[in-house]
Amino acid sequence: MDIRIYNARILTMEPGSEVIRGELWVQGERISYVGLPKPSDIKWEREINAEGNLLLPGFKNAHTHSAMVFLRSYADDLPLHEWLNDQVFPMEAKLTEKDIYHLSRLAILEYLTSGMTANFDMYFHPEMIARASVEMGFRTVMVPPVMAWNSSPEEAEKDYIKLNSGNSLISGILGFHAEYTSTPEMLENIAAAARKHKSPVFAHNSEAASEVQGCIERTGTTPTAYMERMGLFEHGGGGFHCIYLSDEDIEIMKARGLWAVTNPASNLKLASGVAPLQRLHNEGIGLAIGTDGAASNNCLDMFREMFLATALQKLTTGDAAAMDARAVLEMATVGGARAMGLNDCDTLTAGKLADVVMIDMHRPNMQPENNIIKNLVYSGSKENVAMTMVNGRILYENKGFNIDVEPEEIYAKANEIIAGKK
Amino acid sequence: MDIRIYNARILTMEPGSEVIRGELWVQGERISYVGLPKPSDIKWEREINAEGNLLLPGFKNAHTHSAMVFLRSYADDLPLHEWLNDQVFPMEAKLTEKDIYHLSRLAILEYLTSGMTANFDMYFHPEMIARASVEMGFRTVMVPPVMAWNSSPEEAEKDYIKLNSGNSLISGILGFHAEYTSTPEMLENIAAAARKHKSPVFAHNSEAASEVQGCIERTGTTPTAYMERMGLFEHGGGGFHCIYLSDEDIEIMKARGLWAVTNPASNLKLASGVAPLQRLHNEGIGLAIGTDGAASNNCLDMFREMFLATALQKLTTGDAAAMDARAVLEMATVGGARAMGLNDCDTLTAGKLADVVMIDMHRPNMQPENNIIKNLVYSGSKENVAMTMVNGRILYENKGFNIDVEPEEIYAKANEIIAGKK
Repeated sequence: MDIRIYNARILTMEPGSEVIRGELWVQGERISYVGLPKPSDIKWEREINAEGNLLLPGFKNAHTHSAMVFLRSYADDLPLHEWLNDQVFPMEAKLTEKDIYHLSRLAILEYLTSGMTANFDMYFHPEMIARASVEMGFRTVMVPPVMAWNSSPEEAEKDYIKLNSGNSLISGILGFHAEYTSTPEMLENIAAAARKHKSPVFAHNSEAASEVQGCIERTGTTPTAYMERMGLFEHGGGGFHCIYLSDEDIEIMKARGLWAVTNPASNLKLASGVAPLQRLHNEGIGLAIGTDGAASNNCLDMFREMFLATALQKLTTGDAAAMDARAVLEMATVGGARAMGLNDCDTLTAGKLADVVMIDMHRPNMQPENNIIKNLVYSGSKENVAMTMVNGRILYENKGFNIDVEPEEIYAKANEIIAGKK
Repeated sequence: MDIRIYNARILTMEPGSEVIRGELWVQGERISYVGLPKPSDIKWEREINAEGNLLLPGFKNAHTHSAMVFLRSYADDLPLHEWLNDQVFPMEAKLTEKDIYHLSRLAILEYLTSGMTANFDMYFHPEMIARASVEMGFRTVMVPPVMAWNSSPEEAEKDYIKLNSGNSLISGILGFHAEYTSTPEMLENIAAAARKHKSPVFAHNSEAASEVQGCIERTGTTPTAYMERMGLFEHGGGGFHCIYLSDEDIEIMKARGLWAVTNPASNLKLASGVAPLQRLHNEGIGLAIGTDGAASNNCLDMFREMFLATALQKLTTGDAAAMDARAVLEMATVGGARAMGLNDCDTLTAGKLADVVMIDMHRPNMQPENNIIKNLVYSGSKENVAMTMVNGRILYENKGFNIDVEPEEIYAKANEIIAGKK
């Protein structure tokens, strides 16, 4: 579909970009023009008057477990390891492939309400999440999970190949759940597969102090240094959470160009801690933001995460200037895209894929307009998402979903699934 | 207007209340019935099918400076005292009475989008905020501000009398800005006025470590102990922020039945700290939540504040069970109402004033329904506010405002005001 959006404010998120007034053209899956108003003789299928609303690259949810929406508000108020071992793992064990498909659809609805255009997911049965995304027109990058008692490196490699050879909305990156749920043999096999496919490797990393302590007891070193020693980072990659990092860990991340994906709301709620984003930013380490799963967060909302990414740095460094709004917006858009290997969806640039969000500026929380970027990061909320476009298709507009299934049907299914597991 | 809302989930927030299914009747300004469906021969002017959405008491914004919306995103990323002295105070000095009226209207629009039905405000020219509230049908409790270089205790007492003898949507409580902006003579005069009128006394209190240190240097004791020594709390009252409290401060608060109003987002953003809510809660001290002004927050959103009120306690206590969702919802509704002297607006109870919010449950972030209260506190956002009713009148519904002025006019005015001050 060829769509012209005019009378817009536009923030391309290209280096040094400022908010301009102009228009954005989408032809097929791609952006064909971004800039000042100009005439065209293209037969537009749709022309949208943005009424001064803001276009920017869609948010990238750089760490999540979509299907975990079924445990939203199910077992809160517990520390990480107790929550994971006593509540989450036993419930997850009861999930079927089909459950994962249905639950992933619910998460995708929620991503769209928050202006997210892609998710970096780690969950069992990656083909089910891929199916949900393709059907709904959403973009997903999967890390097939590997855990000692669950899917093996061999299965993960098969999934990786399948994910990268199907629909273009879907891609795969190698990884594993975490050091504390792996064996040395598994990690050797993943390292071999990563070398063979030249894939980055992602895993949960240094989310809890006890996790790091346990890793040191088991391996003699920190999770990051251990993964480096196991040869996992020859083609880059990164870590989810990255709260408890040593100086050596940070040196490894710099040397390997690793990404740190932060999940501030989940880390607060599980009392895990606060990732040292300002320090990592100063060291030049690439940063991205994820929501984590709804079981721990409990919402899938990039606005909450952006506010926390800056506000918690101000608190923990004691410096109200820490991690300014622009740096955080970079993380939520360009940073996420690059961490996920979505280099074709990072900015609003002619030739790139059209993954776009429109922010409603005609709401009280966006006024007055002293600083539009600060309004967005410090004051924005889901209420401001006027439109979410993925791959040139408008999937969410005026609070309604342009998808083939009724949201109520998806909600009913999610409630039915959890009712059947209790 | 007589309104029947049926097919609703209802959480009255009375002690021990659970979510029920039923209906809520509003006749004039008051709730006339809450409970299971029942027939009536009342001629309803409007009957609303809530479609299973949730009714609960409107949120009470128990500390704010409405007119400060004009400095939203104007001077972020600065520590409290620099921000206040170099940025806020000089800009505020340029505000006219009329500016304050126009800016207060913008804040009220934003309160409505977040399901808030009353604000506990402290700002210059209280009669201007009162005028905005009355015109828009909103409920405001004002603390006339007293500062050494600004309005005097005598003026504040006059304002107090006026606020309590006009429109029933408006009331006044005595107070002053803070110890560090007052003189002993001023506080003696406020204490005398409070005794005379049997008024509680509210002020900013222990928001920054440096503030407490300065108070100790000036007075030999902490702000709370100093205010107690000055005889300010004979009829109760409380403090805004309450981050740095000593054991003695907490004893005074208990003995006097003082309220602690927390402002977690503002406290993060100014790198001020985290109030010890779990400890105060354990000690039985009454708690309420406020947004603070938009200059420091930057948004006026009870959902953000509720999430932070629980999540930051989990972080700072290291206990993921700290301040559970129900306790936080109490703060945001009943606690706020009682702190503000709005004992007639605290719960959904027949005979009380109809200050009601309806939460849209038909959104992805409210599904599945493992626990409705946790969904609301941990996952809710402005997108879920389907209706805000104040004093029996629906002021906000389906994202639109039922007020006599166009929001665009209010936005334009706010932008014009800030443009004129730069």
